[in-house]
Amino acid sequence: MQRIPFSEVQSTLAAILLRYGFTMDRAQRCATLFAETTRDGVYSHGLQRFPRFIATIRNGNVRVDAEPSLAARFGAIERWQGNRGPGNLNAWFCMDRAIHLAHQHGIGFVTIADTNHWMRGGTYGWQAADAGMIGICWTNTLPNMPAWGGVLPCIGNNPLVLAVPRTAGHIVLDMAMSQFSFGALESYSRRGESLPVDGGFNAAGELTRDPASILASNRALPIGYWKGSGLSTLLNAVAAMTSLGIATHQLSFDPLQEAGLSQVFFAIHFAALGGAAQAEQIAEEIVHSLHRSPAAEPDSAIRYPGEKTLRTRAENIRLSLPVDPALWQQILSF
Amino acid sequence: MQRIPFSEVQSTLAAILLRYGFTMDRAQRCATLFAETTRDGVYSHGLQRFPRFIATIRNGNVRVDAEPSLAARFGAIERWQGNRGPGNLNAWFCMDRAIHLAHQHGIGFVTIADTNHWMRGGTYGWQAADAGMIGICWTNTLPNMPAWGGVLPCIGNNPLVLAVPRTAGHIVLDMAMSQFSFGALESYSRRGESLPVDGGFNAAGELTRDPASILASNRALPIGYWKGSGLSTLLNAVAAMTSLGIATHQLSFDPLQEAGLSQVFFAIHFAALGGAAQAEQIAEEIVHSLHRSPAAEPDSAIRYPGEKTLRTRAENIRLSLPVDPALWQQILSF
Repeated sequence: MQRIPFSEVQSTLAAILLRYGFTMDRAQRCATLFAETTRDGVYSHGLQRFPRFIATIRNGNVRVDAEPSLAARFGAIERWQGNRGPGNLNAWFCMDRAIHLAHQHGIGFVTIADTNHWMRGGTYGWQAADAGMIGICWTNTLPNMPAWGGVLPCIGNNPLVLAVPRTAGHIVLDMAMSQFSFGALESYSRRGESLPVDGGFNAAGELTRDPASILASNRALPIGYWKGSGLSTLLNAVAAMTSLGIATHQLSFDPLQEAGLSQVFFAIHFAALGGAAQAEQIAEEIVHSLHRSPAAEPDSAIRYPGEKTLRTRAENIRLSLPVDPALWQQILSF
Repeated sequence: MQRIPFSEVQSTLAAILLRYGFTMDRAQRCATLFAETTRDGVYSHGLQRFPRFIATIRNGNVRVDAEPSLAARFGAIERWQGNRGPGNLNAWFCMDRAIHLAHQHGIGFVTIADTNHWMRGGTYGWQAADAGMIGICWTNTLPNMPAWGGVLPCIGNNPLVLAVPRTAGHIVLDMAMSQFSFGALESYSRRGESLPVDGGFNAAGELTRDPASILASNRALPIGYWKGSGLSTLLNAVAAMTSLGIATHQLSFDPLQEAGLSQVFFAIHFAALGGAAQAEQIAEEIVHSLHRSPAAEPDSAIRYPGEKTLRTRAENIRLSLPVDPALWQQILSF
């Protein structure tokens, strides 16, 4: 693993995006979002995603100059058309709109159709929390697992993000509805390791920890079995019905053809009700309640969602971003 | 199981609540919510809960005449004080307020502190969907499972409800963050049956399907292991921080002393953006996509969340409500 300074990673990506037709502002923002994701330790959705992002620009699914256009508005809610623009720029724009609406109305709800993969969902949770707000957002995805009781992929892993602001470090959850991502299944399989818990079904329809047999059967497991299957269905329905956009079953099974997603963004300006200092104290006490609860493993402690992020961020700024040399060569060739 | 007409169940409960000091209106509403829960087939949270509800009135945790009072408001968001009133009446009130706010602003967000167990969470999802809106709500609970990596109960199972309206039957998800409720673990244990999937840890800290050993260890499993643990933490944080109310770790481990919960309610009036007919069509297509996807068991079909409710409701209206005779005798003695 080589280490490359944040600014060099960011400027390299921005220069590539400029060549692909992004305006300067949008190239800068898009490159920053990719670099920040790697900086925060979410490697699977940072630089590692950049080649696939470029591939979806090349195949026409991501339109570099498309910006969201307003489809309808009423009070604190707005519906936007994503026009197949870059998913991370569209999502950043939507959470920014939700924050703006929340400043006016206490809450903002923005729904967007025809957008693209937002890369790291947690980004938009941090965005809201950095603005002192609670952020909630989710996206639908292509069908990548069977619904509970089914055998063929027909529901998405539909990542869900919830974030609350906290001075010492926001509490941010960014979770897909599948127990393991395909990337994780592939890593375990390559290393010849078993999953720590059941991750899907084998060809005989039995629950298994063997990643290879799950990849072969294409039957990944929703979190909580029937529960995650139900939650995935509702997240998809809310996103598609409010945006009047595409639902999971209408999306291609091919990740390179996954285009036109539906997403929703909430920002809650709870500080407008007063009591922000008390809310901060409550967040602090919740974190302490987890830290002081006895851990199963000695010398370990229960962590809150997002706990590692600030430490990883500081380390990756100090040491520079860890980048796979082969990946970096590939990126430099774009 | 004896069958008792809905109206007789409702009027019997209402008469009891009148004797316990409810006003006529509130006794009627509260009794109706209990009877409707049994009518809809959610037996664990209907009549079966009534004795515990009466016990919490008797021990002073539920104040029969307490109504919510407004603590703060800003645009489309409101903070209420529950004043330890009956949880189902308070929750019904809050979703009604959220719907009212959504009519004005497109979305309404209501947060309430110092309320009580809302009984069946799905009730408030149906309430929003019956008003043509998307409903989302959740509650925190007493600590009833360890966080991921911990050994003692320190997070709640914090039921989460999402509902979207649909003419042929709303899609309504009502799910707790534990893989199995304590009631379910007790039923499996009584019948000497194994759980269909892992439901917690035994005393040795191993995942197990044996309900008795989970009840003994008090280590129930969050859905999706670390994922449900994280989601429970965020739901608790949002509810407590926005309401300035009590967080899970401050609640008693004793269900009879579980008082002063924090809850949030969202209603989204998406029809205000236009396109309601198109949204209905999208809901219909999502349901069909599940129904036409091949099922693992022959002669079976994938179901959407809430699918059985209307059928069960119709049957329980036609045949009258199924009630355990011993439970009914107990209720008549109140």
